[in-house]
Amino acid sequence: MNYREQSLKRHAEWRGKIETSVRVPVDSREALSLAYTPGVAEPCLAIHADKTKSFDLTRRWNTVPVITDGTAVLGLGDIGPEAGMPVMEGKCALFKAFGGVDAFPICLDTKDTDEIVKTIKIMAKSFGGINLEDISAPRCFEIETRLKEELDIPVFHDDQHGTAIVMAAALINALKVVRKKITDIKVVINGAGAAGVSIGKFLLSFGVSDLIMVDKFGIICDGDETLNPAHKEVAKVTNKAHIKGTLADAMKGADVFIGVSAPNCVTKDMVKSMAEKAVVFTCANPVPEIPRDDALSAGAAIVGTGSSEYPNQINNVLVFPGLFRGALDVRASTINYEMMKAAALGIASCVRDDQLSPGYILPYAYDPRAHEAVANAVAKAAVKTGVSKLHKK
Amino acid sequence: MNYREQSLKRHAEWRGKIETSVRVPVDSREALSLAYTPGVAEPCLAIHADKTKSFDLTRRWNTVPVITDGTAVLGLGDIGPEAGMPVMEGKCALFKAFGGVDAFPICLDTKDTDEIVKTIKIMAKSFGGINLEDISAPRCFEIETRLKEELDIPVFHDDQHGTAIVMAAALINALKVVRKKITDIKVVINGAGAAGVSIGKFLLSFGVSDLIMVDKFGIICDGDETLNPAHKEVAKVTNKAHIKGTLADAMKGADVFIGVSAPNCVTKDMVKSMAEKAVVFTCANPVPEIPRDDALSAGAAIVGTGSSEYPNQINNVLVFPGLFRGALDVRASTINYEMMKAAALGIASCVRDDQLSPGYILPYAYDPRAHEAVANAVAKAAVKTGVSKLHKK
Repeated sequence: MNYREQSLKRHAEWRGKIETSVRVPVDSREALSLAYTPGVAEPCLAIHADKTKSFDLTRRWNTVPVITDGTAVLGLGDIGPEAGMPVMEGKCALFKAFGGVDAFPICLDTKDTDEIVKTIKIMAKSFGGINLEDISAPRCFEIETRLKEELDIPVFHDDQHGTAIVMAAALINALKVVRKKITDIKVVINGAGAAGVSIGKFLLSFGVSDLIMVDKFGIICDGDETLNPAHKEVAKVTNKAHIKGTLADAMKGADVFIGVSAPNCVTKDMVKSMAEKAVVFTCANPVPEIPRDDALSAGAAIVGTGSSEYPNQINNVLVFPGLFRGALDVRASTINYEMMKAAALGIASCVRDDQLSPGYILPYAYDPRAHEAVANAVAKAAVKTGVSKLHKK
Repeated sequence: MNYREQSLKRHAEWRGKIETSVRVPVDSREALSLAYTPGVAEPCLAIHADKTKSFDLTRRWNTVPVITDGTAVLGLGDIGPEAGMPVMEGKCALFKAFGGVDAFPICLDTKDTDEIVKTIKIMAKSFGGINLEDISAPRCFEIETRLKEELDIPVFHDDQHGTAIVMAAALINALKVVRKKITDIKVVINGAGAAGVSIGKFLLSFGVSDLIMVDKFGIICDGDETLNPAHKEVAKVTNKAHIKGTLADAMKGADVFIGVSAPNCVTKDMVKSMAEKAVVFTCANPVPEIPRDDALSAGAAIVGTGSSEYPNQINNVLVFPGLFRGALDVRASTINYEMMKAAALGIASCVRDDQLSPGYILPYAYDPRAHEAVANAVAKAAVKTGVSKLHKK
């Protein structure tokens, strides 16, 4: 049995990867009087008098819903709210196991941007932060932007920024192995959905200057009136040479290929056309842009994938548990770029220079040190940028 | 320190009465491949092909949100979503401890009926059932009715029906102690909000024929054009003698007083005016209609309250955990009157005739036998009435 067949069997046995646990005694009349009526009236009144006390007297300080509309689940696409649940439950399990965050999956039965924003706003006072998941582009951009503006708790679209953060960490360490400078390299990103756009913008902030974004219609180029608003914005800050053409054209001479797109869209010849000591991150999920072994045999120096089956798994599970842990610990009002950059550097710092190799550029997803490093870095950055409600800078 | 002061102190120590727990291993590369990517794609695809599999491959079969808008929390009134959370968390703890149900609190930041219905419908495919809580009347009637019509999972407004079920169980056993027949008694219900209206209708279905409902404006009487739609409906089937007047007028000669109203609105003289061997259920929360000791010294034969501090606690914690356990176990599509009646009889049956006394008419809330009895009775009634999706009648 392969992983997918085994996984189906296990899911049928598990019937749920998370559950609710009770943290207080309720097994006597006295216990009920304290945890429930009549005693519970007192914390209710205390919160009514001071709303911020909901972070002290209930679980709100540690609670994050993992919210999807089921439109962009893994690489499977729009499979609907019920079918998205196994991924959301998995995410919640990882939130708790690696970040100590009490996460809960909510799959929404609507694709309407306004309805999604409204539904989340109506629920937000139950939670310490909001994790958006597997919502398709371009709706995800507007949904996240509006929620960030209108809520005073952290809002994070993991597919965009979690992916960008872990990709940046992988790139930083890969460049150490191949001895290239981030300011000198040519980067091609294939896939200009939620993840691709966010990775592109994020890498620019780390000093990448030669960046080409490609989608299924080819290279994204400024001046193309058929581009959607998100892509027009991207076109303004990438592809400075105004190159037009296909993915194969873009990849010629590139130092780094980052794929967050579709299965099997990259050939061995395309990898062969890249620069010396090429770095290939082929992260389409569950089937990558090019099989890892093909990329290696075509000459790539370092290959990373989205799968836990191979070395160099580039997976946002390295990001979201620690990121929210850090943000919740200092009661951050938002997640800003400085916190995201701190998270990327925190992950990268977990592999010492003398440990780095073509097959080991990132810590393992199940390494508690990695999540701790992210949490500490993010909390510090939140305090430093003045968005912590508990600690003044 | 009294219960309320102690409770506040405990809530500050607990910082949450429930949490999320992880049910599967995620501590190795292989474990992650099964619980998360790439394996998780397979259960997603299986559910996409057959939506009902969400009950087999995720926690949906056992998950119920406890949803409030914070408008009628305990007897504290409209204290808002944040301040309602301690009660909702407590409810979730009891759901798990007594019914094994994975409940999760969601406090909504809107009082608009349409928005509440829409928000819950949008979330419903994540859950096995919906528990509505502490939503004020008359909005709660429309919200529950519409959700029951439009969803094919159980929807239950606990303040209405949980209260009605436990009150009926208490009455059935109290009448055994005072040796009166349910068809012969005169019942007065004070408070015609969510709970009062539901109790009234439910008792009629058990054979009560002389029933007077009273609200803050006095006795509810057919023909009064100022009544709201819910009260007009009530007026048609109660108060057959068309009596008008105050609560004091209604209580003269009554066998049973049921209070789900406001603190201290019943005097000792009003209890003295009742029939011989009067039964007084004074359940306003946290402060009752009349103190228990006053009702006893005024001659009541049996007194029940909403508080766990005294004998005969009439609290819906005896209902909702077992009720949902039974409904979820047979995957009921709804909760119907037959299931509710079965729950009431199930609770009543937990105290044997030779155990019954004026101070012991109901099982204790923390008695596992009671919740088991409710679950079994409800599951059986669901199958019998053809609403189980797993078992044909």
